[in-house]
Amino acid sequence: MPIYKAPIRDISFASREVFDFGTIKALPGCSDMTDDLVDAVFQEAARFCENELFPLNQSGDQEGCQWKNGEVTTPKGFKNAYDKFVEGGWTSVSSDPKYGGQGLPDSLEFILEEMICSSNLSFSLYPGLTRGAYTAIHAHGAEDIKQKFLPKMIDGTWGGTMNLTEPQCGTDLGLLRTKAVPQKDGSYEITGNKIWISSGEHDLTENIIHLVLAKTPTAPEGVKGISLFVVPKFMVNDDGSLGDRNKLQCTSLEHKMGIHASPSCAMSFDGAKGWLVGKENAGLSYMFTMMNNERIGVGLQGLGISEVSYQNAVVYARERLQGRSLSGVKHPKKPADPIIVHPDIRRMLMTMKSYIEGCRMMGVWIGQEVDISQKHPEKEERQRADDFVQLMTPVVKAFFTDMAFENTNHALQIHGGYGYTQDFGVEQYVRDARITQIYEGTNGIQGLDLVGRKLGMHMGRLLRRFFHPVQEFIKEHEDNEDLAEFVGPLAKSFDRLQRAALTVAQKGMANPEEAGAASTDFLSLFGHTALAYLWTRAVIVSKPNENGSESLFYKGKIDTARFYMQKILPRTSTLFATIMAGKKTLMDIDEEAFGPFDFSGFSQEITRAS
Amino acid sequence: MPIYKAPIRDISFASREVFDFGTIKALPGCSDMTDDLVDAVFQEAARFCENELFPLNQSGDQEGCQWKNGEVTTPKGFKNAYDKFVEGGWTSVSSDPKYGGQGLPDSLEFILEEMICSSNLSFSLYPGLTRGAYTAIHAHGAEDIKQKFLPKMIDGTWGGTMNLTEPQCGTDLGLLRTKAVPQKDGSYEITGNKIWISSGEHDLTENIIHLVLAKTPTAPEGVKGISLFVVPKFMVNDDGSLGDRNKLQCTSLEHKMGIHASPSCAMSFDGAKGWLVGKENAGLSYMFTMMNNERIGVGLQGLGISEVSYQNAVVYARERLQGRSLSGVKHPKKPADPIIVHPDIRRMLMTMKSYIEGCRMMGVWIGQEVDISQKHPEKEERQRADDFVQLMTPVVKAFFTDMAFENTNHALQIHGGYGYTQDFGVEQYVRDARITQIYEGTNGIQGLDLVGRKLGMHMGRLLRRFFHPVQEFIKEHEDNEDLAEFVGPLAKSFDRLQRAALTVAQKGMANPEEAGAASTDFLSLFGHTALAYLWTRAVIVSKPNENGSESLFYKGKIDTARFYMQKILPRTSTLFATIMAGKKTLMDIDEEAFGPFDFSGFSQEITRAS
Repeated sequence: MPIYKAPIRDISFASREVFDFGTIKALPGCSDMTDDLVDAVFQEAARFCENELFPLNQSGDQEGCQWKNGEVTTPKGFKNAYDKFVEGGWTSVSSDPKYGGQGLPDSLEFILEEMICSSNLSFSLYPGLTRGAYTAIHAHGAEDIKQKFLPKMIDGTWGGTMNLTEPQCGTDLGLLRTKAVPQKDGSYEITGNKIWISSGEHDLTENIIHLVLAKTPTAPEGVKGISLFVVPKFMVNDDGSLGDRNKLQCTSLEHKMGIHASPSCAMSFDGAKGWLVGKENAGLSYMFTMMNNERIGVGLQGLGISEVSYQNAVVYARERLQGRSLSGVKHPKKPADPIIVHPDIRRMLMTMKSYIEGCRMMGVWIGQEVDISQKHPEKEERQRADDFVQLMTPVVKAFFTDMAFENTNHALQIHGGYGYTQDFGVEQYVRDARITQIYEGTNGIQGLDLVGRKLGMHMGRLLRRFFHPVQEFIKEHEDNEDLAEFVGPLAKSFDRLQRAALTVAQKGMANPEEAGAASTDFLSLFGHTALAYLWTRAVIVSKPNENGSESLFYKGKIDTARFYMQKILPRTSTLFATIMAGKKTLMDIDEEAFGPFDFSGFSQEITRAS
Repeated sequence: MPIYKAPIRDISFASREVFDFGTIKALPGCSDMTDDLVDAVFQEAARFCENELFPLNQSGDQEGCQWKNGEVTTPKGFKNAYDKFVEGGWTSVSSDPKYGGQGLPDSLEFILEEMICSSNLSFSLYPGLTRGAYTAIHAHGAEDIKQKFLPKMIDGTWGGTMNLTEPQCGTDLGLLRTKAVPQKDGSYEITGNKIWISSGEHDLTENIIHLVLAKTPTAPEGVKGISLFVVPKFMVNDDGSLGDRNKLQCTSLEHKMGIHASPSCAMSFDGAKGWLVGKENAGLSYMFTMMNNERIGVGLQGLGISEVSYQNAVVYARERLQGRSLSGVKHPKKPADPIIVHPDIRRMLMTMKSYIEGCRMMGVWIGQEVDISQKHPEKEERQRADDFVQLMTPVVKAFFTDMAFENTNHALQIHGGYGYTQDFGVEQYVRDARITQIYEGTNGIQGLDLVGRKLGMHMGRLLRRFFHPVQEFIKEHEDNEDLAEFVGPLAKSFDRLQRAALTVAQKGMANPEEAGAASTDFLSLFGHTALAYLWTRAVIVSKPNENGSESLFYKGKIDTARFYMQKILPRTSTLFATIMAGKKTLMDIDEEAFGPFDFSGFSQEITRAS
């Protein structure tokens, strides 16, 4: 049986010691965010996640969602847990009070998100998608649409979805085929097939509010002709009661590697009634409002699933007796020493610990900047924060989730053969984590977003939002001998990042394939450097407490930072070399040379792909 | 639907062009291994793998093995395929002719192994385990035991297993509890529980010959008191007919992440009749005879599953239309370009191609050395080859399988959302590949075997079997300007490997934890350097053919070698840095500092682990 306890102590370290929660409290509307209130929210969320959501994680995976005649049944216990989730007010935490939300900061919501995803990634996708749909309607919908749909989405009575993908178009939305034909009453008739729609159909809520990308008959070609529509499963009468069933249905569920308790639906819209959100042909940009939020959310999924797999790996490593310490027997009364005595087991645990706690700091950082970008009274400050959020969003999405796949696999490996079975639940974490590298834009797309869009945007202004504070920090501390073992590697990695950024920007200008060839490695170099900066900050906070009452915790922080600098950060030397090697070896090779060379008479069997 | 075609062309390149198959033909008993014969064997094996084994791979995964009242049913089609496998003589390829085998070289068998594992990893484990048991009995059993069991194991009528693991002991066999009590008739009564026994029970063969590790009542403590027993499922009468059912049974199957069509059995021996293999208390060393073979086999599983996932990724990348080339539209008549135009997709494909074809050369290399170690007329040559095989075995096991997990995940990523579903079969490859990093000694154990045992063995003699030829090769070609772009990086990486070996050996002498801390990274550095050497050899073979009739193939080789040098080999710079950083940051941190810090009142729930 796997275990999970919300890491409240470390969350507090990241959000109150490394970062200053006072920054958030000072924002308009946040003055009542006292430490006591925040503590109470965390404690209550922890209790709910540990006791209600987490116990359904393994059973949900094993049972999965069931489709029958267009209806989807969620696994046993999910409906009950969802009702309690709604009852506890967890669906409305950071939503707009105007429509019934609690208006708490996003930085707080992000922390809850980590806990929920640690407990039950599949479950998190039901309220997660509703929140995504809420965000798009809230940002771009007309007031009557907001009044009609938002309150019941916020209070959890209704769910929400995002319908983007079609069989022939995933990344490339220009290939979209779903049609939206305008009707005399101002509505549209939506017809087309969507796939991979998370929470597209289920039994948790009374209604499901679909957001659908489609093209009107007069729309321009490609991505410039995409509009966004709100298409409810059940019509909503003027008094808010439910009317007829709309002409849409879930025709099947995907059979997936993981997140079995989250239905990935094929949806068929057969002249379904929908209403335009915002203006025609502006759908793609609306979708990106929401998508950016979702991408940070997926990053936090990676953090959450990393944390739970780490906890299980630590507990197992301290319990499992196998072999003896290489430096002499540690537990002579036991038949063998616990495997945590072995250096290679520690290598995996420390890798996880340093990534997870590093990413937690980064999550808090971006969370606070999201709040500032939305709530700060000064426009300049909002813009500065928004620049930062835009820059870091692809990094958080891809770096956190690549890390999650590495972490969950370390946890599995530490469990040995047991890890490969359902017994300890870790193999599920690997399977569940794997999707986070794919959905809401594959991690390759995140890399392209970073180097192809964000890097050069406003003449590098976004980039400076990260470069400047790091540069100043290095300057401030570079002469401090006590910190040399941290600031030194940070400065070296930062130098690599700066040089890589310059090279990629220059070469990419002349040939975009140069940027494309460097994208994934550049994003990783960026993420690793950001963590080096954050770990150095963590050391500065920890040093004064090294010998205090929480010595174990703070000394552990410094030890972990040291490990990160010596054993993880050197990854940037390889990344720098491969970035600098450029596109040549990728693009020169003939397409035919990939093979296969033995496929004579071989008939293509891909049917769904193109 | 996934596809697979045996990569005959590349197998021929590795075994006839880069290496010289003539070396094998010159060995005693191998003179009839003409090119025509070898071709015929490959063609026939390819046909069988593609048409019989491969079509059962996905259905086998989805159906899995079923346990009922101690009986195990294999998935639909497996029995029929196994019968044809037996009929085709595939169980006896390299076995001893004295007991009915065909006596073909192991290097040939290794190549077949790759194809079988590409087609159906689960299926491969049935004959694979029989072969393992055959090897141990053949090497250490008394003649009457050999006569009794080997012929029907060789012809496939009976299967075989290896019973090592128990709930409390995986890596640490010193904790073994299974008892073997000697009987008056010379047999032993075996009592105990084993877990994770591949092919421990199934419906493919008339009988199953279990090899079981157990301790006699007078055995010394720990690993020095382990004996090996042969314990048949059904007794075998003197005339070879089957007698009574032995007192052993399969009590359950593991629920695993992958290899669903291979039963991992919990076995209960309740006073089962068994016979000693070899001498009492020498079981561990006997097991290692077999284990070394098995470890190479697991490496080849990694190669096989990498190959099939690569083929599917290439086909998909050339078919799937999404987005446009960054350097301008490539297929204006199509709605979008195939994704193989994108640099980041090529990065993944080239990574796979360079690892797979590199490892294939390495597989041929170790295969030929295995043959030499067994068949060469001169003792000195046999010893030299055996040294090499011992040295490279942990590298082949761990490097090939770590590569396999990376490769299968690249294949999944290239497929995007489709990769996460069962549609194209690639997620199964990820799940199946994952076990290869664990069984037959986790990859961490392989690293320890390399640095802790093999590195210092006979004063570094084993290591020189690899170092000397590579060193000579570099010296021979270092002034060749045409090869500078390959020999240069090779020499740099080889220098890192030499320096790391010296440091690890020296520091490890003083403190074994230093070796333990470097083990995994050192093995990876070793593997990467070996591939750099082999890729440079591949270039030398390919250059003269660059503009010939197979220009596409040979030019592709040179392009891939160049990619490997520029984009993969730089990984050795990070590995070198982390090796040199030593054990300090792993071992200094307090065990308690791993956390969890929020587990007050938390009750340990691990029941099976200790």
